[in-house]
Amino acid sequence: MIRGNTTRMLLVEDDPNDIELIQLALENYHFVNQIDIVEDGEQALEYLFGQGDEQPRRQLPRLILLDLKLPKINGIQVLEAIRRDPRTKNIVVVVMTSSAEDSDLQACYNLGVNSYITKPFDFQQFIEIARQVGFYWMMLNQPPLE
Amino acid sequence: MIRGNTTRMLLVEDDPNDIELIQLALENYHFVNQIDIVEDGEQALEYLFGQGDEQPRRQLPRLILLDLKLPKINGIQVLEAIRRDPRTKNIVVVVMTSSAEDSDLQACYNLGVNSYITKPFDFQQFIEIARQVGFYWMMLNQPPLE
Repeated sequence: MIRGNTTRMLLVEDDPNDIELIQLALENYHFVNQIDIVEDGEQALEYLFGQGDEQPRRQLPRLILLDLKLPKINGIQVLEAIRRDPRTKNIVVVVMTSSAEDSDLQACYNLGVNSYITKPFDFQQFIEIARQVGFYWMMLNQPPLE
Repeated sequence: MIRGNTTRMLLVEDDPNDIELIQLALENYHFVNQIDIVEDGEQALEYLFGQGDEQPRRQLPRLILLDLKLPKINGIQVLEAIRRDPRTKNIVVVVMTSSAEDSDLQACYNLGVNSYITKPFDFQQFIEIARQVGFYWMMLNQPPLE
């Protein structure tokens, strides 16, 4: 069965260093074809749901890697919007954040996040974890049908 | 913060070969302390919710690895019961099944499964995938608070 472009992922991240490390981790391997990047929550919603007639609705990514501390609309609000809309409610969302706060963790699980990853401070560990997250969700996990 | 015995997992699986392979995959490493095994859906619900006064409610496992084709109560019904009860609704559930049927996949995502893994036929691949699943959820993922 064809599941469309299942090797595309969406990265929602505003920190340029983290973007670079995640790209570095994933682009060395063949399990991600295309990483679309948006840098705040508003752009994430626009990417997913479109605005106005000019923007055709994109094929959904297989994985959304979502930071929490984002400008304009934060990650928890983005997750909430994704789970509320029938078009996107089952899409795989992995939160990857520097926040180890219980309230963030709990809010994400209450909203139905698939997985919650705490970013390590060490950059080599960061790359290794990003690689493992990418591998797990792009190669092992069977994504929902669109 | 102490999160209790976070290295315990529950395996819900009726196939003795699969149980053996999963144990083999996980017990060689140190990321699982204890694998509790139940072999049908009824036992899984009893394990999680207890029956009668004699059975004290156990501390919840960090991960439930759930087969779908189970005697008595099937895996989808177990997942539904887990997500319905406030005590267990956020617990990490990974379905690991030989079913590649779209209806099973979709039902699991609709019920809020964290991840859906298709069992490979080759036993060495099976062990490797079980190891990766165990590593991801026991070592990388930050589980919800109890």
